[in-house]
Amino acid sequence: MQRIGIVGIGLIGGSLALALRRSRPALRILGVDVDARALEQALQDRAIDEHATPDSAPFGECDAVVLAQPAHALLESILPVAASLRPGAVLTDVCGSKEAVCARGGQQQRVVFVGAHPMAGTEFRGFGAASATLFGGATVAICPPAGGPEGERSRALALVRDLWRAAGARNLLDVQPAEHDRAVTFASHLPYLAAAMVVESLSKASDLAPLARELAAGGFRDTTRLAGDGTVGGAASLNRHVPEALRELSDRMRALADELTRDPGDTLDRLGRLADTRRAMKLPPRT
Amino acid sequence: MQRIGIVGIGLIGGSLALALRRSRPALRILGVDVDARALEQALQDRAIDEHATPDSAPFGECDAVVLAQPAHALLESILPVAASLRPGAVLTDVCGSKEAVCARGGQQQRVVFVGAHPMAGTEFRGFGAASATLFGGATVAICPPAGGPEGERSRALALVRDLWRAAGARNLLDVQPAEHDRAVTFASHLPYLAAAMVVESLSKASDLAPLARELAAGGFRDTTRLAGDGTVGGAASLNRHVPEALRELSDRMRALADELTRDPGDTLDRLGRLADTRRAMKLPPRT
Repeated sequence: MQRIGIVGIGLIGGSLALALRRSRPALRILGVDVDARALEQALQDRAIDEHATPDSAPFGECDAVVLAQPAHALLESILPVAASLRPGAVLTDVCGSKEAVCARGGQQQRVVFVGAHPMAGTEFRGFGAASATLFGGATVAICPPAGGPEGERSRALALVRDLWRAAGARNLLDVQPAEHDRAVTFASHLPYLAAAMVVESLSKASDLAPLARELAAGGFRDTTRLAGDGTVGGAASLNRHVPEALRELSDRMRALADELTRDPGDTLDRLGRLADTRRAMKLPPRT
Repeated sequence: MQRIGIVGIGLIGGSLALALRRSRPALRILGVDVDARALEQALQDRAIDEHATPDSAPFGECDAVVLAQPAHALLESILPVAASLRPGAVLTDVCGSKEAVCARGGQQQRVVFVGAHPMAGTEFRGFGAASATLFGGATVAICPPAGGPEGERSRALALVRDLWRAAGARNLLDVQPAEHDRAVTFASHLPYLAAAMVVESLSKASDLAPLARELAAGGFRDTTRLAGDGTVGGAASLNRHVPEALRELSDRMRALADELTRDPGDTLDRLGRLADTRRAMKLPPRT
């Protein structure tokens, strides 16, 4: 691979460019974005070698293109970008929702589409928050190749795996799109949406907000950190499993409220067991 | 103050002992706990000078006693401990729920009770997680003195303020118990209960749990960190404002699920605005 295009030079796309610059210095990186200032900054920081707007980008000269825009823009760009690639090139993406995206990638036969999802992020956005080490040690979910000539699929998959290894990822996970979306619903989208609703609750209790902020210890900050990232919502809104899971979460909360009124002792036991359950999950430590 | 008793030598009580040992080396600290091993450990680490079980503790020899047990045990110990103190001593506590606790403290006239709530914690529990710096720079909510002789109240309040300054607290906040509990409902108890229900959702989706855990990036860990602390539930269950706030949060989630099905575009705008709202809260940075 000699030339790669990255569409969307924000936190994820910008971090990928910076990581590839470091591990593959000979690779030529084309940055594509609607935001001219982000492109200028990325060029100045040597994250990219050249830049273009989406309408005028020379995609036909790229060996691979990574779509890293916000979810809806990303979904809508798959077919147009695929159509502008040369045969043999590989199209991939970073979206946190995979069923809709991989299905769209399979709707064309020009190039192989390989959906991927790096499990990394911060509550900050934009190229200003990008870092060459964002994907260091990260897990990346990679879906089966879709679309394009069948004979090119295994090479395309190998290219995408190689790309994420070069970016620093440690754990490449082969998953089916539907399986991915159901798991991410619980691992990422419910925590995000719950955090957002907790922030909304506080902001609506406007008489209390100043005191509540003063009384907010690290717990509120950590619990609602995800809510600061409005872009996760895009992937959540493309995920067909989310509304039902959110309704179930809503039911759990109502049942908990009733239980707290009726039988605080049992509720405490249940919450204590959940604390044990979480400990048993052996989540990766903060890095 | 020459001698202080701390009942409950866990994360909070143990950290208070360690902090006072450092800033007030001449102060004699009596550790009281039902757990003999925690007391032995605290004695070995020189967090306390002497120890006793709750039934046999020489409370009558203390100038002040801090109640730092789990919420329900703490509430039930207020009247018995107050009755065993000598006149002129001060009784205080660290519970995250203040209305029920301060009302109980006001039900006796032997000593002045001053309810306090240090806004600090981790997801770890017990003396093993205690640290002399846990309260460094922390905010502590302090409620008006209750019970005891009226003429001793201002001295009792001054003693409790001095205690938390000595423990490293930066911001001592005078609050009414009801005002505190309503604010903490949003700042702490809703985030905690939402986190616990998110963990429960994942643990019930047992077919997905292994993959979801692999796909859980820092977002899940941070969002559910609070859920690892089963003790917050005790304070939440004493807080009469929690069930209603939890029902409202449940309603918000159901409405969001409906909105995501019906009009994803508007939902995304709303989530983006919430991200802005959270940024405008200027939460304290991770320390």
